[in-house]
Amino acid sequence: MKVSLKNENLFRIQRLEKDLECTLRKSESKIKQFTTLAELSTILNSTLDQEEVRKRAMEAATRLMNCEVGSLLLLDDETNELYFEVALGEKGEKVKEVRLKVGEGIAGWVAEYGEPLLITDVSKDPRHSRKADERSEFKTRDMLCVPLKIKDKVIGVLEAINKLEREVFNNEDLELFKMLANQVAIAIDNARLYKELQETFLQTAEALADAIEKRDPYTGGHTKRVVNYSMSIVKYLDMNHEEKERIKISAILHDIGKIGIKDKILRKPSELDKDEFEEMKKHPILGQEIMEKVTQLKDVIPGMRYHHERLDGKGYPDGLSGNKIPLVAKIIAVADAFDAMTTDRPYRRALKWETAIDNLRRGSGEQFDGEVVKAFIRSYQSGDISD
Amino acid sequence: MKVSLKNENLFRIQRLEKDLECTLRKSESKIKQFTTLAELSTILNSTLDQEEVRKRAMEAATRLMNCEVGSLLLLDDETNELYFEVALGEKGEKVKEVRLKVGEGIAGWVAEYGEPLLITDVSKDPRHSRKADERSEFKTRDMLCVPLKIKDKVIGVLEAINKLEREVFNNEDLELFKMLANQVAIAIDNARLYKELQETFLQTAEALADAIEKRDPYTGGHTKRVVNYSMSIVKYLDMNHEEKERIKISAILHDIGKIGIKDKILRKPSELDKDEFEEMKKHPILGQEIMEKVTQLKDVIPGMRYHHERLDGKGYPDGLSGNKIPLVAKIIAVADAFDAMTTDRPYRRALKWETAIDNLRRGSGEQFDGEVVKAFIRSYQSGDISD
Repeated sequence: MKVSLKNENLFRIQRLEKDLECTLRKSESKIKQFTTLAELSTILNSTLDQEEVRKRAMEAATRLMNCEVGSLLLLDDETNELYFEVALGEKGEKVKEVRLKVGEGIAGWVAEYGEPLLITDVSKDPRHSRKADERSEFKTRDMLCVPLKIKDKVIGVLEAINKLEREVFNNEDLELFKMLANQVAIAIDNARLYKELQETFLQTAEALADAIEKRDPYTGGHTKRVVNYSMSIVKYLDMNHEEKERIKISAILHDIGKIGIKDKILRKPSELDKDEFEEMKKHPILGQEIMEKVTQLKDVIPGMRYHHERLDGKGYPDGLSGNKIPLVAKIIAVADAFDAMTTDRPYRRALKWETAIDNLRRGSGEQFDGEVVKAFIRSYQSGDISD
Repeated sequence: MKVSLKNENLFRIQRLEKDLECTLRKSESKIKQFTTLAELSTILNSTLDQEEVRKRAMEAATRLMNCEVGSLLLLDDETNELYFEVALGEKGEKVKEVRLKVGEGIAGWVAEYGEPLLITDVSKDPRHSRKADERSEFKTRDMLCVPLKIKDKVIGVLEAINKLEREVFNNEDLELFKMLANQVAIAIDNARLYKELQETFLQTAEALADAIEKRDPYTGGHTKRVVNYSMSIVKYLDMNHEEKERIKISAILHDIGKIGIKDKILRKPSELDKDEFEEMKKHPILGQEIMEKVTQLKDVIPGMRYHHERLDGKGYPDGLSGNKIPLVAKIIAVADAFDAMTTDRPYRRALKWETAIDNLRRGSGEQFDGEVVKAFIRSYQSGDISD
C-alpha cells in the first residue's frame, strides 16, 4: 500500500511537471503569436497605399498563421464577385484572373453569410470551388477563411491556406486569424478612403483647370494632353511615385494663371502683337500667385512658374538657363511645346507628329532639356503616346 | 527517512500545483491583455478623424493598463513643446493649458531621448515636473511614459498614470504599453495625413474659386464671405459634421460657373441688359457642368445649380419652389444675397448691415427660406459674423 502510494505520488509529480512545461510552452507560443499580431497590425496600418496594404495583408496572413499561402479576395460591388486583388509570384498571376460569384466556393460562402470558416479537409467540403487551384496548379488541403467587414458590410475575404509543419488549423488559429482580419479590413478601408480623397482632389483640380482652359477657344483638351505627355515622359526618367504625383499635379495646374488674362488677348483670333504677348507672358506668375496660398502644394509652384523657360536662358518669366530650371518645368515645357505644335492655332495649322518630334530633337539642348526630349521620343516610339 | 521522503513529495506536489495554477492564471491574464490590445488597435485605427483618434488613444491607455488616467502629449514642432492635445473631464481642461519644453519633466525627457520610462515612484524622480499635477490637483504616483514615433521621429508621448488595485507598473506592463504606443503613433499619423490631404483639397478649391472670382472686379472676397456666412448659418441648424463639410465645399464652388461668362458681361461697369442677364443666369448650370466630372462630389452639385432659386418659384435656372429647393442651396442663397446687398456694385452703393438684415427678414418665406434666415439672424446677433 505504501509503495503504491509512493508510486502514485511520483507519477503525479511527473504528470504535473509535464503539465507545467506544456502550459508554459503553450503560453509562450501564444504570447509570441500575439506579439506577432501586434507587429503585423503596425505594419499593415503604417501605409495608406492600397497596393501596399493588400500585399502586406497577404504576407501577414502567411506569417501569422504559419501557412503555405495567404490570400486576399476583395468584393467588387458592381458585379457582386470576389477577385484576387493581389497574388504573389507566378502562380499568383494566374489566380488573379479567377473571379468567384458571392455564394460560389468557400470564399463565396464566407462573403455571402459573413461568417468565418475553418476547414480541416477541403477535399471533403462540397462548397470548394476548384477554379483557383486548377489555375495555379496548387493543392489546397486545409484553410481558414474569414470575412473582412467594415460596419457589418463584407468588403472581402482573407484566407490562410495549408498550415505548415504537418499540422492542421484549429479553433485557436481561427480566433487569432479573425483578429488579424479585423486589422486588415480597417487598413484596407483607410487606404480606400485616402485614395478616394486623392482622386477627388485630382479630379477637382482637373475639372477647374479644364474650365479655365475652355476660355481659350483654341486649346480644347490641351491640359489633359500635357498631363498625359508629362506622365509618359516620367515613365522613362528615374523617379519615385511621389515625384511623379507632384509632376502630375503641376501639369494639371500649369496654365491656370491664364484665368488672369483678359478675353480680348486670350480669345484673339489672330497672332498676338508685342504688347499682348507681354501680357500673355504673365500667366506663369499669375499661376504661382494663385497656388501659393495652398501650403501643401509648395512643390507644385516651380512647374507653373518655369514651364516657359528655355535651356538657353531665352525663356520667360525669369530667363533661367540650364540646370537652374527645375526638372518638372523642363518636362512640362516639352509636353506643352509638343501639344502646341501638333494642334491647330488661329494663325497656322497643326504640324504632323513626325515633324513636331523632329523640332523637339532640333531644339534639344537649346530650348529643351536633352534627357527629357529623349524620354519623350522613347515614349513615342514605344507607343505610349500616339496620334 | 521514508516519512520525510513522503512529505517531501507531497510538498513538491503542492508546489507544482500552485505553480501550474499560477502559470495558467498569468497566461490567461496575458492573453486577455493581448486580446484587449488587438481590440484597441482596431478601435484606434477605425477612424481617420484626428480628434477622435486622440480621444481613443487616451481611453485605450487607461483601459489597457488598468490605470487611473491615460494622457497624450503631442509635439509642437515649431515651439519644440509638448502639449496635452486632449484631456478628459474638467481637470483635463486645466491640464490642456500646460506646455512642457522638450527636456522638461518626465514626458519632456522621454521626448528628448526617444526612450520609454517606467517610474514606480514619481515623487522620487527629480525629472518630474509638477506643472500638470498642480493645475489639475492630481497626484501622480507611478507611471509609464512612452515616446510615439513615426520613422524614428518623436511626434509625442503617451502616458499611463497610477496603476489601479494597489499595484505598481512593472516591466511587463511597459512592454505591452510600448505595443499600444506603436498603434497610437500610426493612427495619429494616418489621421494627420488624411487631414492634410483634406486641407490641400479645400485650399486648392478655394484658391481656384478665388482666382475665378477675381475676373469679376466688383466682387473681391465674395466667395470667402459666402463660405463664412454659410458656415455661420449651419451652426444654428441641426446637421452633422459631414453635412457641414459638404455645404462648405458647395459654398466654395458655388460661383465657379462664372468662368464660362464672357468678360464683356462679367466686367461690365453698368447694370446688365436683359440679354446679358440671361447670359449671366447660365452660371449655375455651367458650374454644374464643370463639377459633374468629379465622381465623389455629386453631393456638391445641388448647391451650385440651385443657389439662385427662390422659395416662391421665381428664381433660376429651374424655377423650383419651396421644399423642392435643397437646403444647401437655400443656405447659399441667403449668404450670397446678404453679401451682394452689403458690398458696393457698379450701379449702387452697399447697404448697411441692419438694412440688409431687414431685407432678408422681409424676403423670408418668399425669396428666402424662413429657417435659414432665422439661423442667419441668430448668428448675426450672437456676433459670429460682424461688419
